[in-house]
Order: sequence, then structure tokens, then C-alpha cells
Amino acid sequence: MTDRVTLADLPLRPELRGKSAYGAPQLTVANQLNTNENPYPPSQALVDDLVAEVARLASTLNRYPERDSVDLRQELAAYVTRQTGVTVGVDNVWAANGSNEVLQQLLQAFGGPGRRVLGFTPSYSMHPILAAGTQTGFIDVPRTGADFGIDTDAAVRAIAEQEPDIVFVTTPNNPTGGVTPVADLRRILDAGRAAGAVVIVDEAYAEFSAEPSATGLIAEYPATLVVSRTMSKAFDFAGGRLGYFVADPAFIEAVMLVRLPYHLSTLSQAAATVALRYSDETLATVDALRRERDRVVAGLTDLGYGVVPSESNFIFFAVPGETGDTHGTWRRFLDRDVLIRDVGVPGHLRMTVGLPQENDAFLAAAATIIGEHT
Amino acid sequence: MTDRVTLADLPLRPELRGKSAYGAPQLTVANQLNTNENPYPPSQALVDDLVAEVARLASTLNRYPERDSVDLRQELAAYVTRQTGVTVGVDNVWAANGSNEVLQQLLQAFGGPGRRVLGFTPSYSMHPILAAGTQTGFIDVPRTGADFGIDTDAAVRAIAEQEPDIVFVTTPNNPTGGVTPVADLRRILDAGRAAGAVVIVDEAYAEFSAEPSATGLIAEYPATLVVSRTMSKAFDFAGGRLGYFVADPAFIEAVMLVRLPYHLSTLSQAAATVALRYSDETLATVDALRRERDRVVAGLTDLGYGVVPSESNFIFFAVPGETGDTHGTWRRFLDRDVLIRDVGVPGHLRMTVGLPQENDAFLAAAATIIGEHT
Repeated sequence: MTDRVTLADLPLRPELRGKSAYGAPQLTVANQLNTNENPYPPSQALVDDLVAEVARLASTLNRYPERDSVDLRQELAAYVTRQTGVTVGVDNVWAANGSNEVLQQLLQAFGGPGRRVLGFTPSYSMHPILAAGTQTGFIDVPRTGADFGIDTDAAVRAIAEQEPDIVFVTTPNNPTGGVTPVADLRRILDAGRAAGAVVIVDEAYAEFSAEPSATGLIAEYPATLVVSRTMSKAFDFAGGRLGYFVADPAFIEAVMLVRLPYHLSTLSQAAATVALRYSDETLATVDALRRERDRVVAGLTDLGYGVVPSESNFIFFAVPGETGDTHGTWRRFLDRDVLIRDVGVPGHLRMTVGLPQENDAFLAAAATIIGEHT
Repeated sequence: MTDRVTLADLPLRPELRGKSAYGAPQLTVANQLNTNENPYPPSQALVDDLVAEVARLASTLNRYPERDSVDLRQELAAYVTRQTGVTVGVDNVWAANGSNEVLQQLLQAFGGPGRRVLGFTPSYSMHPILAAGTQTGFIDVPRTGADFGIDTDAAVRAIAEQEPDIVFVTTPNNPTGGVTPVADLRRILDAGRAAGAVVIVDEAYAEFSAEPSATGLIAEYPATLVVSRTMSKAFDFAGGRLGYFVADPAFIEAVMLVRLPYHLSTLSQAAATVALRYSDETLATVDALRRERDRVVAGLTDLGYGVVPSESNFIFFAVPGETGDTHGTWRRFLDRDVLIRDVGVPGHLRMTVGLPQENDAFLAAAATIIGEHT
């Protein structure tokens, strides 16, 4: 094709002009510790089961998928019931292509033009991007202290004053790793309910934490609380793109008004359903990763890095002596074949807990880098 | 869970209140001729190839998918080049979870609050729904005559007067089946370009038509024309949910600013890539369906129904003597185990061309129903 034009020649929405696409660099590096994936591949038994299911379903691919993913939601409900100890049913669960799509649907239903979402930053960087993509205003309440916790008094005050339509609470928080204890969550939910807001608790990393899941609070806050979760992290299923939320059934009715029909393919539904059958072995990898996390936290601390306590599968750490841009240090890890994440928080970097040998490579690089530093 | 609330208790956006979820009834009926699927299942060779590919990839499902779907887009470009005779490359193609997501991304980039899309109705019923979901105004220009064609003079005038930001042209048109000839499309593109609009030609059913694809006009209208397509219809791949568009590379850069990262799962990318290898056998089913379509058109016409000429895999027909709601007639087909579609156009119904025996069942029902009618 000839006659190429440039982006500047297209009638793009003004607020998108000059923006660049979201996303960590997809580099191929020996130790890939940058996107909070679970490093354990699915077991051979799971793979065999998935292959059998695809063989069974492939001849129906000329037909549209089951539109409301009822079987999958049933399996998700059973998993959530087992994992959190809170009994939920198919009517309490909604699924989509990754938690990004789940959150986008919630923003379409409860956010949008003239509405605002309040978030505690730094947090999952997609929250403000999803807000912008749905024309929802974003109110930024900074996390405070070396641990980047939510100042609950300030949070409750901000919600009362600003009256947002949606509040995001990420716990464990990405990229910083700490949790918002249930007692604090309850105060935020009370403030949210008083303000008429929907409080979305983003539990993408919940399985890595000892803190009880917020699903236990849904019965108390049925018109306020939505708990968003994903199979991308604990579930070693990032490639399957399956996010979900747990809430009162009224929230499921709400997102059905905005979801694209047939949004989840036959294969996505089937693959996630199979993966859920193997949740016991998946949760065993979660235990292994928690032990590795604690080992890396101890190692990094011994080396002199400032480590934020983590209840997740990643570790957020301060580089001694650095108060600004850490891109140079990020690059020095990469030069040692260790790809971690520069999330743009001054003085800090984030590493995802990997396999033992990957974590060893990370710690070795961290030792060399801090040695050159001091 | 107890303490249920209702949708009315939630702070839903006001324009969604009272709406109901989109979607044809998913009933199980012997002759399912209601959603424009291709009735031919994938071949055993395709299924085997897909199963082998899933077996190969399943052990990588703990990793995120390739974010920009480059391999898949390469295969799509090769297919479009073969099928339309217009050479396009990977930079001309973008893919997402069904053409609904493709169109939603285009509306997020070029529509949105304060902007308007113009469409010629009746047409694909998701167009106004996607506009509403992205807060884009919808300007409705009615199609005219018994064939529901676009009145090109009126279209050009409406575009010049209204100056929409986006124009949708569905060709072949769903639900009516006719095409907009290239000469008319060119006049609409000229008007769109003069108005600074993006013209999205929705070619979901292009493979069923003898009219050349609009991809041949991209080089002439690089900053104006986007051709949207899907693997759901001709490709007997509705369950795989794979839509795409073809345009100047600047449009791909634009949607990358609004697409959700990792929107296409590893399995979606792989399954579509495998299906594209079998395009020759798929296009053979398209030929069979065109022949069946012509047979059903002749049969329906002989029976006395008013048939709109179709270049698609469905047939839109007028029920003699009916000028209003056709739900009763739709129900009488269903009573005879034939599920067709009531799209809400007075006096009309739509049937999808199925397997020969399904079409026979449809024609037999149509004969009985018109017999009772007169």
C-alpha cells in the first residue's frame, strides 16, 4: 500500500493526541521478572485435560459461544468459595477477557462522562488509563510513608469531600505489595456507601496474601462492594486472559447492559474452566512463591535495599541513594539478563518473584549493582 | 449470600436505567437459523491442527500473550491479500475479540463524548449500541425502498450537513443483505473525507458477495477509510471471536492507544492463526452457502414472500400482508422447529442460510405458514 498518512492526519480524540500505548517492553531475557506472572507452567495433567477439551469443542467453533459463560462462572464461584471460605454462587460472579475488561465494563456502567473515580496511588497503572478510556475523571489520593499504605483517615475524608462515583482499592497493592487490612477496608466501604459510590476492591494478587478476601464483606455492603480478581497471577494463566468479579447479583445485571455480546470465546471459557479444576496444584505454586518472596525480601534487605513489605508475588524496593529516575539502575539489571519493572515511582523498582534460580540471578545482580553504587 | 439488592439500588449511569441486555435468544432448536453463523463445522484436519497447536502452547499459558498479535496479523494480512486481491501487510491489519471489540476501539479513538457517528438503518444493531457504550451520538439516516438500499444522494447530503465524526456503511448490509456498490461507496468516502470523518465499512459478510472489497480503496482514502471484517461468518469461526480491520497503518497506531493491553489471549491468537491456514476449505463452504442462498431466495419468492436480494449468508424477507410486528410469524416458525430472527423491522424477518436440510425445513415451514395466512 502507498499513500501512507500519519497519526496526526487522523481525527483522533484530542485527549489521545501525543499519548503512547501502554505496556511493559516485551523483551526476551533469561530472567523475566517484570510482569507479575506466575513462573510455574501448567502441569502436564492440566495441559492434557485442556487439549482433550479443545478436541471436543473445536468442531463447534462455527457456532457462537455461550453468551453468559454460565458453566465457567459456576466453576469460578466454586473456586472462590473454596479459596476465600465465603460461599458465593454463579449469580455472584462475572467473567471477561482479563480484569482489564472487567474493570472497563464496571467503569462503563458506573463511571463515564461527568463521573469520577478515586484511587490511591501509586497503584495498578491501568486504573487511570481505564478511567480515561471511559471518560471518567480520576481523583488521585497519594499513598503515604515508606510502605505506601493508605492513610485511612485521609481516605475517608477524601471520599466524603469529593463524593466520587467509584473508589478503587488495590489490595495487595500493585506495584507496592502491601495490603489494606479488613478493618481499614470497612471504614472505606462505610465512607463509600455514605457517598453513594461503588467500591471496587482489586484483589488481583489476593492468593499471595494472608489477609482475608473482601468477598466476606459483600453481604454487608451489597450495593457498594465489587471484588475484582484474575486468573493471570496466582493461577499461572496470564495467557488465558480471564478476569472476574464477585459481587451482589445486581452488579452482574448491570455489566450485562454494557458487555459486548459473546465477549468470551468458546476456547477462553473452556480453558479457564479446565484450569480451575487444577486449583489445588496452582495454589501449591502460590505457596512456593510466597516462600521465595520471603527469601528474596530477606536477601534484598541484607544487601541494603529498602524493601516494602510484600503480601504479593512481587517486591517493591528502594535503591539506596536514588531519589529520582531509576531507569539507569533498571538498565543495569537488564545488562545482567534480569528484566524487572520501572513503574515510574522515584527511587524504586519492582521485581516479580520467579523460579528459585531466577531469584538467585536477581539477587546476584542486586549485589553487584549495590556494590558498584557504594 | 443474603441481603440481595436490585439494579435500582445501584448508582448505574442514568442512560442505562431500564435498558435490557442485547442478544438473540440462545434456544436449542433443530434448525438454528438465527445468528448468521456458518453451519459447516471446522474440518477434522483443522481440528487436529488446532489441537496440536494448543498442546504446543498450553505450557506457556502462565505467560502473557504476545501483546500486539503480530503473527496473527501477518496471517490475516496474507488472507486479505489472497481473498480481496489487494496487497496488505501486517501494519495494515488490527485484530480483537470479535468485530464488536474492533468497532468499540475505533469509537473510543474517533468517537466519544461530543462526537457523532452516522449510520444507515436498519443495519447491524450493535452499531448504535456501541455508539451509546462509548457516549457517541448516533445519527440515523434511513435506508429506502423495498431493498433497503442507501440513497446515495441523501447520504452525501446528510454527511455534508451533519458533519459526523464517523460514518458506518455495512456492506453487505445486515439484516437486509444487499450491497453498496463501489461507485456509491466512493461518493460516500468523498463526502466523509470532506467532512473530516472516518468512514468504517463493515464487511462482516464480504466473502458472500461478488462486489469487490473496499480494501481496494484504502490507498485512495488513507486517512478516511477503515474496513472492518470478521472470522465469525464466512470463516465458520464464530466461537473463536476474532474480528479485524484493514486500514492505513496510522489507524493501527490510533487503536493501540485505547486497546486493553493483552486483549487477545494466547489461545485466541493461535486458534485464529490455525483457522486461517484452512481458508481454502472455508471459502468452499462459502460457495456452497451462496448456492443454497440462491435456492432459498427462489423458493421463498415462489411461495409469495417478498425477498430482498441478498449477497450475504442470510435472507431478509417480507411476510405478505404483515406491515407491523412479525413476532407471531417468528413464533410460528419456531413452533415448526425453525429458529429465525425478528430484528424489529416491521413486516420482515431474517433467516440465516443453513445446511441444505435446514433450508428445506425452513422452506417447508414457510410454505405452511403462508398457506395458513392466505
